[in-house]
Amino acid sequence: MQILLINPNSTASMTEQALRTAQRVAAPGTSIFARTGIDTPVSIEGFSDEALSVPDMLAQIRAGEADGAQATVIACFDDPGLDAAREAAGGPVLGICQAAVQAAMVLSKRFSIITTLPRSVPAIEDLVLRYGASQHCRRVRCIDLPVLTLETETQRAFDLLVAEISRARDEDSAEAVVLGCAGMSEMTAALTEATGVVVIDGIVVAIKAAEALVGAGLRTSKANAYAYPRVKD
Amino acid sequence: MQILLINPNSTASMTEQALRTAQRVAAPGTSIFARTGIDTPVSIEGFSDEALSVPDMLAQIRAGEADGAQATVIACFDDPGLDAAREAAGGPVLGICQAAVQAAMVLSKRFSIITTLPRSVPAIEDLVLRYGASQHCRRVRCIDLPVLTLETETQRAFDLLVAEISRARDEDSAEAVVLGCAGMSEMTAALTEATGVVVIDGIVVAIKAAEALVGAGLRTSKANAYAYPRVKD
Amino acid sequence: MQILLINPNSTASMTEQALRTAQRVAAPGTSIFARTGIDTPVSIEGFSDEALSVPDMLAQIRAGEADGAQATVIACFDDPGLDAAREAAGGPVLGICQAAVQAAMVLSKRFSIITTLPRSVPAIEDLVLRYGASQHCRRVRCIDLPVLTLETETQRAFDLLVAEISRARDEDSAEAVVLGCAGMSEMTAALTEATGVVVIDGIVVAIKAAEALVGAGLRTSKANAYAYPRVKD
Amino acid sequence: MQILLINPNSTASMTEQALRTAQRVAAPGTSIFARTGIDTPVSIEGFSDEALSVPDMLAQIRAGEADGAQATVIACFDDPGLDAAREAAGGPVLGICQAAVQAAMVLSKRFSIITTLPRSVPAIEDLVLRYGASQHCRRVRCIDLPVLTLETETQRAFDLLVAEISRARDEDSAEAVVLGCAGMSEMTAALTEATGVVVIDGIVVAIKAAEALVGAGLRTSKANAYAYPRVKD
Amino acid sequence: MQILLINPNSTASMTEQALRTAQRVAAPGTSIFARTGIDTPVSIEGFSDEALSVPDMLAQIRAGEADGAQATVIACFDDPGLDAAREAAGGPVLGICQAAVQAAMVLSKRFSIITTLPRSVPAIEDLVLRYGASQHCRRVRCIDLPVLTLETETQRAFDLLVAEISRARDEDSAEAVVLGCAGMSEMTAALTEATGVVVIDGIVVAIKAAEALVGAGLRTSKANAYAYPRVKD
Amino acid sequence: MQILLINPNSTASMTEQALRTAQRVAAPGTSIFARTGIDTPVSIEGFSDEALSVPDMLAQIRAGEADGAQATVIACFDDPGLDAAREAAGGPVLGICQAAVQAAMVLSKRFSIITTLPRSVPAIEDLVLRYGASQHCRRVRCIDLPVLTLETETQRAFDLLVAEISRARDEDSAEAVVLGCAGMSEMTAALTEATGVVVIDGIVVAIKAAEALVGAGLRTSKANAYAYPRVKD
Repeated sequence: MQILLINPNSTASMTEQALRTAQRVAAPGTSIFARTGIDTPVSIEGFSDEALSVPDMLAQIRAGEADGAQATVIACFDDPGLDAAREAAGGPVLGICQAAVQAAMVLSKRFSIITTLPRSVPAIEDLVLRYGASQHCRRVRCIDLPVLTLETETQRAFDLLVAEISRARDEDSAEAVVLGCAGMSEMTAALTEATGVVVIDGIVVAIKAAEALVGAGLRTSKANAYAYPRVKD
Repeated sequence: MQILLINPNSTASMTEQALRTAQRVAAPGTSIFARTGIDTPVSIEGFSDEALSVPDMLAQIRAGEADGAQATVIACFDDPGLDAAREAAGGPVLGICQAAVQAAMVLSKRFSIITTLPRSVPAIEDLVLRYGASQHCRRVRCIDLPVLTLETETQRAFDLLVAEISRARDEDSAEAVVLGCAGMSEMTAALTEATGVVVIDGIVVAIKAAEALVGAGLRTSKANAYAYPRVKD
Repeated sequence: MQILLINPNSTASMTEQALRTAQRVAAPGTSIFARTGIDTPVSIEGFSDEALSVPDMLAQIRAGEADGAQATVIACFDDPGLDAAREAAGGPVLGICQAAVQAAMVLSKRFSIITTLPRSVPAIEDLVLRYGASQHCRRVRCIDLPVLTLETETQRAFDLLVAEISRARDEDSAEAVVLGCAGMSEMTAALTEATGVVVIDGIVVAIKAAEALVGAGLRTSKANAYAYPRVKD
Repeated sequence: MQILLINPNSTASMTEQALRTAQRVAAPGTSIFARTGIDTPVSIEGFSDEALSVPDMLAQIRAGEADGAQATVIACFDDPGLDAAREAAGGPVLGICQAAVQAAMVLSKRFSIITTLPRSVPAIEDLVLRYGASQHCRRVRCIDLPVLTLETETQRAFDLLVAEISRARDEDSAEAVVLGCAGMSEMTAALTEATGVVVIDGIVVAIKAAEALVGAGLRTSKANAYAYPRVKD
Repeated sequence: MQILLINPNSTASMTEQALRTAQRVAAPGTSIFARTGIDTPVSIEGFSDEALSVPDMLAQIRAGEADGAQATVIACFDDPGLDAAREAAGGPVLGICQAAVQAAMVLSKRFSIITTLPRSVPAIEDLVLRYGASQHCRRVRCIDLPVLTLETETQRAFDLLVAEISRARDEDSAEAVVLGCAGMSEMTAALTEATGVVVIDGIVVAIKAAEALVGAGLRTSKANAYAYPRVKD
Repeated sequence: MQILLINPNSTASMTEQALRTAQRVAAPGTSIFARTGIDTPVSIEGFSDEALSVPDMLAQIRAGEADGAQATVIACFDDPGLDAAREAAGGPVLGICQAAVQAAMVLSKRFSIITTLPRSVPAIEDLVLRYGASQHCRRVRCIDLPVLTLETETQRAFDLLVAEISRARDEDSAEAVVLGCAGMSEMTAALTEATGVVVIDGIVVAIKAAEALVGAGLRTSKANAYAYPRVKD
């Protein structure tokens, strides 16, 4: 099975980080090919960054499916362009926020999400509402670090995440914590170990959900809203 | 990987039907062992039937995990005892309604559900609300046949399902249809073929979701709501 | 008028406590007969406890109605098996959580609920949502004591409740407080006196609501969802 | 026990009709004194009619409590001035729409409401949302007759109600029907008999709920939102 | 263009304050004529005050339209009698709470509201829900001052507002703040300057919205719910 | 005052049509300069079309503000890139769907929306939810015509709109109808005349709302979610 893992931003090291995480959990027989955004922002930190990353992402998804991809995972927690991607793709398209939220609703009654910058909090809250998890999500928190700092100041980011996960557990009675940025994925195991909390990374669960849907023989419905884009003269 | 597939009712032929469906989609290396309710109702057609099936189901889940099950799938679309099962289990527990609803939210913008008896419609509507899919689920429909008739009058059930799926597509603009009873699972492919609609069966997607969560290394959070039942003197 | 007061757990002293509360408010002419769960958990502290108490409760409700009960009150704040009980019964069935929430919505604009253990908080939050009171219920709080401690360490429980009611008033601007456990019912008057807050006990209001519905000549609708369980061969 | 039954409009025959209904279900020992609006509209058929009826109603409630009323029932299905009435009163105040909706949520999973004029439908829908019953209320219907026609053309109104209740049962799968106008209350038993549907009248259940809350020793919370109106210089 | 600015309470100095604010932002060609409640409460601080102010307000709106008013602004943040006013009026009717909430949803993702007395908080929360802004409104706060104190102790009120706006920004991550009382309108600019926060005053945006709707050639729909009150014999 | 009217698609004739509508309602002193998408889809008929139009739109908004635009109106009913545009802009940004929905909530209790293609219905439903109008919007309907057909087969489109508006009035009891495509704006008056229904066009009300917010001295909050995009190295 071939899965396209697309990082919509243009920072290749983030793609590699996500790919390492993905490969660690991929089933035997799953081949993951990762793509990085071309001429897109170096990180997705707001609505404009999202918007600027989507056209290239759609092209890459089409190219990926032409090359044999059976499912697509969008490796950015804002789930940029998710509806558009599902329209463009034939196979299932997983957003890592939606995948993580769905997993958290199965594994816990109440969870919190921890993202990077404060400005991303309302955007993620809106996704939580859209994915039907408002009752289950206690709070969207942040560590107030820019995305790329996760790579340049990893230890500091880790310490802040440990502290914030602990606050989610103690103040929110969160039973699980979702990591709200693709760039945090390689810390998942260490964060779980450091805090004792069930920590859910979107890349991990999205890759597995992609395998699951392909394995189930299911593809994106092409009736109505997710029909392929209309071809115009 | 070992997955427990538990049919909470006491009709072994339904368990076998569900097991055949499950095995058809199981990944290599997944071993599914199926269990049938003991002294539970022959079918789950209402809240009392649900309630009478849960205590035995909880015992079977505990026994199943003791025997090595890493995840559990409850093969009844009412998701009976889902919260209790998650409390009793260490591994992930999938309800086929929740699993199907989550898949439908990924593969389509709008879907409908088709169940057996009218009396089950409000119960499933409440599950849809609880799973956060009220905006996505157009309508819960039924074919007005008792559950066991799916086995005894299969052709009639099939014809009614084809007609109702078509109504969901035409009247609800449903882009996908979820089958609202475990006993319908073996008809999935034929229904898709007959109607051209994306048809989602809960057993299929729950088995795959179970594999996905186990593969992701995730287990039910034992903090707070899903902590193991308190032991009392 | 005959009302069945069923305590789904198997601790007779809790039944007696609830019965004393019920009799204190019963109208002249109301006869309350109380029943205790047989072979059910000694307290309901989680979803499994709930599930294990329901089958016996359903049998007792049927027996109670055969003996002349015109309405049933379930004396556990988790409202275990409420839908199933309404299916099994001909008369009205009151859950003490729903009854208390409905009373609180009449007597105040904003209220909080105080239960025993933290693990019960999400379960009660879900009931609040289901009963349509999310806008009215400020917060579900707990005193972090096991249920049976209400009997063994009554003074400590009382002091914790006084403190928590005060917090609900001061931090939540709660205008009324609902006691979130049947075992607290005999403290209601003292708590009101100690705090000056309107304190609502579910047993009290459920008994009165049962009298009200019987007095109104109303019974559970047997059309569709609450029809008697289907009889199977 | 003394209960004030206030008809906010100025049509005395409607008050008498409501009073007859109320007395038929009142408990022994309950004394109901009815009041009619003074210089208010002859019927409440819209938001302005509501608004014009409230100031007099508030004065009558204060007078009624001064005369010994322990609870108040507002006999108009729009629940005009309900929040203001609760502010003005010390005892519990029941709106017949809220009381009927709460009873319907106990006695059925899904119900519909049938009112008089089309213009009242959105107003009642908003009450249903406010009372937390959006998931339970299938539809607000109307028979397209002015309120006073219920008295002048009773047979025609009855026939239209029978037809509309049947539609609610057949098209909405309504398990119970709430009568959406105080002026329909005397037809309740006949409508039940004619249709076989559980028909709920707001005056009946509001009177019984008033008795219940007084019997429970509960009064309107005077903390915060329902505190008595501020006295100003 | 003529706009009626109606202050439903009977304090003329509040009307003048509101009028000064309105005239400061009115477009050239807009003529605003202000009216003060006659025999209504001196301030609106609760549901009864609201109710007592509406009948006169409806009469003034009718008179105002007869005198040429093309739109109406109700200068009280509780939006008293808004539905009734729309029924009575032919032109658009703006409530300052709804207008401010709609503006805040355009200018920010998350905002908080600051009102005067604690008792007004739940009322405003209910308006927020009704106007569809529950996801956008972080919190309704108050400074715990009676309305008229805004005029008699202006500096104290100002200081309390500065402090509370700062708390909204810091604790709620509010991106804008809505002033929750008409009597605060003249402080808007100074509050913005003192805090650096986008502060939205309802009178300002309601006047501009009134101009906008009249300029668009739109009037209140007279179909169904907002049809003119029925004339009765 | 200068307002930027941006048509995100690349069909200049649609821009001109929108501009004519805008100028017809603009206040004296308002100068509207219209821009057409460059290298964007010829029409916006789905999520991909939206996504492909946003990057150019953001650039044009920045350029427009640099040229003196004080507010921006996005002339496409899907409100593509609305959050990103607000991030990019300093002045208020109006989406014509949100503006129309807000106006409809002021002018009516219940409205319906009529768009072009069936595939756009779920997208608009999601906007309705996001703008808090689910209770107010009866139904999103469509005439099943591609967007550009509004220009090439105007009479046919008009006839279909008349028929669908009539259905909204009769079947939905819609009190107002919102036109769900920028390309319908010039038909507004004729549709109102032909049907007698209050018809709301998004361009009209968005232009007026833009004037209103600029006139109020309000700009987009730059705190948190709508802060300008982060500048990266």
